[in-house]
Amino acid sequence: MSSEFTFKLLATDGKARRGEITMPRGTIRTPAFMPVGTGGTVKAMYMDQVRGVGADIILGNTYHLMLRPGAERVARLGGLHDFARWPHPILTDSGGFQVMSLSKLRKLSEKGVTFRSHIDGAPYEMSPERSIEIQGLLDSDIQMQLDECTALPSTPKEIQRAMELSLRWAERCKTAFGDQPGKAMFGIVQGGDIPDMRVRSAQALKALDLKGYAVGGLAVGEPQEVMLDMLDITCPELPQDKPRYLMGVGTPDDIVKSVARGIDMFDCVMPTRAGRHGLAYTRRGKVNLRNARHADDPRPLDEESDCPAARDYSRAYLHHLIKSGESLGAMLLTWNNLSYYQQLMSEIRASIEAGRFADRTAEISEGWARGDLPVHPAR
Amino acid sequence: MSSEFTFKLLATDGKARRGEITMPRGTIRTPAFMPVGTGGTVKAMYMDQVRGVGADIILGNTYHLMLRPGAERVARLGGLHDFARWPHPILTDSGGFQVMSLSKLRKLSEKGVTFRSHIDGAPYEMSPERSIEIQGLLDSDIQMQLDECTALPSTPKEIQRAMELSLRWAERCKTAFGDQPGKAMFGIVQGGDIPDMRVRSAQALKALDLKGYAVGGLAVGEPQEVMLDMLDITCPELPQDKPRYLMGVGTPDDIVKSVARGIDMFDCVMPTRAGRHGLAYTRRGKVNLRNARHADDPRPLDEESDCPAARDYSRAYLHHLIKSGESLGAMLLTWNNLSYYQQLMSEIRASIEAGRFADRTAEISEGWARGDLPVHPAR
Repeated sequence: MSSEFTFKLLATDGKARRGEITMPRGTIRTPAFMPVGTGGTVKAMYMDQVRGVGADIILGNTYHLMLRPGAERVARLGGLHDFARWPHPILTDSGGFQVMSLSKLRKLSEKGVTFRSHIDGAPYEMSPERSIEIQGLLDSDIQMQLDECTALPSTPKEIQRAMELSLRWAERCKTAFGDQPGKAMFGIVQGGDIPDMRVRSAQALKALDLKGYAVGGLAVGEPQEVMLDMLDITCPELPQDKPRYLMGVGTPDDIVKSVARGIDMFDCVMPTRAGRHGLAYTRRGKVNLRNARHADDPRPLDEESDCPAARDYSRAYLHHLIKSGESLGAMLLTWNNLSYYQQLMSEIRASIEAGRFADRTAEISEGWARGDLPVHPAR
Repeated sequence: MSSEFTFKLLATDGKARRGEITMPRGTIRTPAFMPVGTGGTVKAMYMDQVRGVGADIILGNTYHLMLRPGAERVARLGGLHDFARWPHPILTDSGGFQVMSLSKLRKLSEKGVTFRSHIDGAPYEMSPERSIEIQGLLDSDIQMQLDECTALPSTPKEIQRAMELSLRWAERCKTAFGDQPGKAMFGIVQGGDIPDMRVRSAQALKALDLKGYAVGGLAVGEPQEVMLDMLDITCPELPQDKPRYLMGVGTPDDIVKSVARGIDMFDCVMPTRAGRHGLAYTRRGKVNLRNARHADDPRPLDEESDCPAARDYSRAYLHHLIKSGESLGAMLLTWNNLSYYQQLMSEIRASIEAGRFADRTAEISEGWARGDLPVHPAR
């Protein structure tokens, strides 16, 4: 295991990249999907299941953890890895996105942002320095700069102002983070849906020579095409030898198309959240277990899956659990979904190594498009 | 494995009994605690965890299952064991108790009871014959007679009427059940808090020569003393060579005191329900994980437990999960609680075998009375 944070590009296929991040707590095979463990838990999952489906790294939300249980408390308890019983790498966001979307009475200035907790109204201050301090208290392996993420649509003026503020904050975060060989602090490209802003942001961040780069401010409601256009424009501006992380993305289709444009890392609540709402991601596309067509169906979600949740439980049972609001329904579908996402990443990685990325992902997409099994004759 | 339903008394210590029920789907070591799997799932648990903590048998609720997913549907899907992925013995109640407590517009007659579903208002009829038919469709291993459970307090007249109706229904259930060598149908002693009624009910049921006997209509709000008095009166009237099941009981203390009076089987939602509400059963008594005293406590619930939920997670983490409403909190505390209940049953069984039941259970009770660990100095 490396004592330093390093990124190695193992293979490329077109713009798709197969790589490896090594750091003291483990190796991250890229392209990687990071399950979201908002409050120190990947909802409805045991950590050994998260590991078991193939996750090399999970994401923790700084905003949630700073409010509850509190960053200093997590530090006293030995850091987030011990607290949540996940000894492998953890990436934390800066907290900025949730401050903007969840907190109350926000006030943004050059210095940072003051806000009130959405839980109990308690006042907090978040600056670039405090964000890095909190992520350090959590003992996060990959830390993110504080940024201002503008909603889309926004005016060009507003997008430029937020992008430039984010750049200044990136410098302050770099200074605050200092020299931590086994860890990394990533900068975040902003610039909304304006190509020129994206390029300027990426170039300025590249000049800071950070250990990795994220693309932020996408998957915030814009059409997929806009997101992909921004990736087409942004990725060529980023250094080849650093990992690239597309924040908050996305559907399996988003992931395939973003890997095709040179993205290495993803996180998204979709597989976990959808699982709690009765939706299963499968190689035959998205399956809604609430649908009555499953009520008498003895077949599993996917008889070929390695995941017990997909392979060993009948659709009839899953339907029953979801309709009844039983927690085992959320547990099983979350497990299935994270397993499917990791399976997809594994196939993506193998296909890049084999120089078959375009062909293989076309086959995968065809599988989604063909759709689910025909209704079971028992119905 | 036996092809017949048999009960063997292996040891006694005072009135406490150590026994074994054998039947085609498995052996039940008694005294036994049956986790409640209301709707075909023990809430927040995987079935392999339920088995792993030492459960030989679980309970399914006929009322819930007949409404959703429906008994005929479960039968088409291969029975409750296949449906819920629990290949070991299952006991089902008759549905009567929940009809009385949950359904709408009940109408009771000699024939049975008509009611409307609490879920969608759909009309249902439940007779002794239909209850046994449903339990057969579920493929239940131990089936319960339909009875009328009177709330306490009730008038003597009302208690007598319900008790006598329950006796007539027991006969009809016996006839409906017929001859099923590998399965059993248990009668239920009623009679409220009136000793004479309890004796008459037990004697009349004994005369029916059933394969097992339950004591019903207790743990319905009366003081523990009343419940224990009724057991003191009832148990001597029941045959020695048949298992005795105290329905819906109870706390660890209730269980110890009921075993001391000759009870062999228990079921209760307490460990599962309490777990979902942040309460942990431990050898040091009941621990409320919501309490702020745990917020900085790095110690596990019980470092000596075999159960990962009790042994491997800090109280601080459990507190955080429960306070945050995270499903992993309910998952871990339910696991801990069912593990503790099964551990208690295992100790009870071993102590009867060793002729140390009174001494050992006194020690166990002292452990509960001493209470939880002192507050951690970190606080």
